[in-house]
Amino acid sequence: MGQKIIIHEVGLRDGLQNEAAFVPTTDKLALAGLLADAGLPRIELTSFVSPRWIPQLADHAEIAATIERREGVRYSALVPNRRGLEGAKSAQLEDIALFLSASEAHSKKNINKTIDEAIAVLSEVAKSAKEHGMWVRGYVSTVFGCPYEGAVDFGQTHELINRLFAMGVDEVSLGDTIGVANPLQVRQLMQRLSQDSTIKLDTLALHMHDTRGMALANCLAGLDAGVTIFDSAFGGLGGCPYAPGASGNLATEDLVYMLDGMGYDSGVDLDLLINASEKVGELISRVLPSKVLQSELAQRRKAEEKAAQGSS
Amino acid sequence: MGQKIIIHEVGLRDGLQNEAAFVPTTDKLALAGLLADAGLPRIELTSFVSPRWIPQLADHAEIAATIERREGVRYSALVPNRRGLEGAKSAQLEDIALFLSASEAHSKKNINKTIDEAIAVLSEVAKSAKEHGMWVRGYVSTVFGCPYEGAVDFGQTHELINRLFAMGVDEVSLGDTIGVANPLQVRQLMQRLSQDSTIKLDTLALHMHDTRGMALANCLAGLDAGVTIFDSAFGGLGGCPYAPGASGNLATEDLVYMLDGMGYDSGVDLDLLINASEKVGELISRVLPSKVLQSELAQRRKAEEKAAQGSS
Repeated sequence: MGQKIIIHEVGLRDGLQNEAAFVPTTDKLALAGLLADAGLPRIELTSFVSPRWIPQLADHAEIAATIERREGVRYSALVPNRRGLEGAKSAQLEDIALFLSASEAHSKKNINKTIDEAIAVLSEVAKSAKEHGMWVRGYVSTVFGCPYEGAVDFGQTHELINRLFAMGVDEVSLGDTIGVANPLQVRQLMQRLSQDSTIKLDTLALHMHDTRGMALANCLAGLDAGVTIFDSAFGGLGGCPYAPGASGNLATEDLVYMLDGMGYDSGVDLDLLINASEKVGELISRVLPSKVLQSELAQRRKAEEKAAQGSS
Repeated sequence: MGQKIIIHEVGLRDGLQNEAAFVPTTDKLALAGLLADAGLPRIELTSFVSPRWIPQLADHAEIAATIERREGVRYSALVPNRRGLEGAKSAQLEDIALFLSASEAHSKKNINKTIDEAIAVLSEVAKSAKEHGMWVRGYVSTVFGCPYEGAVDFGQTHELINRLFAMGVDEVSLGDTIGVANPLQVRQLMQRLSQDSTIKLDTLALHMHDTRGMALANCLAGLDAGVTIFDSAFGGLGGCPYAPGASGNLATEDLVYMLDGMGYDSGVDLDLLINASEKVGELISRVLPSKVLQSELAQRRKAEEKAAQGSS
């Protein structure tokens, strides 16, 4: 088999949180089951945020508590603060993720805290989580550009990564939150981080959004630079559901198709993954942006029509 | 400035030919004008095929004869046979393109000729065109996979490239007609061709379709391998208009965004290019798949709303 690549599936959290129509809890649990069937080793289930912020994820406690855990699958949830951590603990969740902006302006707008204020909270949460033996992921967002500030200095991101690892975080995911990155930026950032001997390359993930169609090319640049963990959302969930075709997260299908073709081993079965995406597309009644999904579903429909003609 | 990259714009031919609703000739000419305004150095205008095959391009003679030629822009048309060549000559067109399948099954299905039969025709056309001082491009399609045969041997493509250059063709464009290629394949093919000292790398183009979302990542692999000519369609025109979101050609906007960000010099102005794509989207009444186009248009609309609120 080829080199092992880990896909961290964020569709149920980063994807669904942008969908206005509430997806029933039992359906979310069924989707998580389909994703595990497909072989995804990481499933980010939900976020322990206030239902007033994100009504779609109001059922986070129930989801985390009742999910049928499969062997070999890491189930995580985003935890914004101490209260969220307590919720995750109560739900017997063992894996959590923390969130930090690389841009001061984005941090203020998003969570009404400066970066230093946010770090003060996260340090406490990380400390408590590690004392309880939890696995902790840290997200750094707006790494490649901020909607308010524009360019973000890689030095700032580098420092935040070091601070996250210093507080005990196990893995850091680097986010192109608004989908502005290009492959040269990815190469430059990874080159910089590779030269820091305190950072292990296999504890860094890339989290690319496809707002400008760059996500997969950026992942290719990451793969070439030795990145082995990639975040994506099944079907390409995410983004703004009111802008036709506007996409959010990199589609897991498109990533898996590329990895398969290049001989990497993600352990994900594309056919089974498409079952999960077909189901979520039906649930939220929209055509999901994943190109591989669209072309696969078109082929399935064609085969069904052919079979129906043959049997009539 | 960065390294020069040539974009060969195929939207008016390879893109529009898939659109059922006829775009009036004057509109096509206006679109070609907008593309030239945007700085595209190559505009493939149309195809001298029978209107029974492709009604959309029935106005090829008028388009080619009346197009306002801009300095520094190469205007070409696809020419399937001797008769097409005569048409192109009558229209005073100086640049033509020929078409060949790398797959025997695709050749038979597409033009009802074996590859050898097709080459016999193209040799004659190329010879006559070169005698008239024309610039001749050769397309090889289904290089990375065939809808009927599946995998296509790179040895076959390599041989066809050599045969095209031997008949006097100036440039060969390698097509992933059904959008199945991955970056490893692109690297392997380019490595093979780079080792053939009779082939000049700057006479090879990549023509990627985005059916499975791989087009831009494949272009990145091509760029890294030294390819300097890329085919694309403004707005991401092409593909099947009846399958929502199903895309055909790589979108020129997405390619330009990546090239700009990486410091390459395509000479194309993204803002002006978006004017052309906005116009064609209105003409064919559909949301075009280019992600950069969609995100740009959303931003323009937002800015207009803000301006309207400010002035009221």
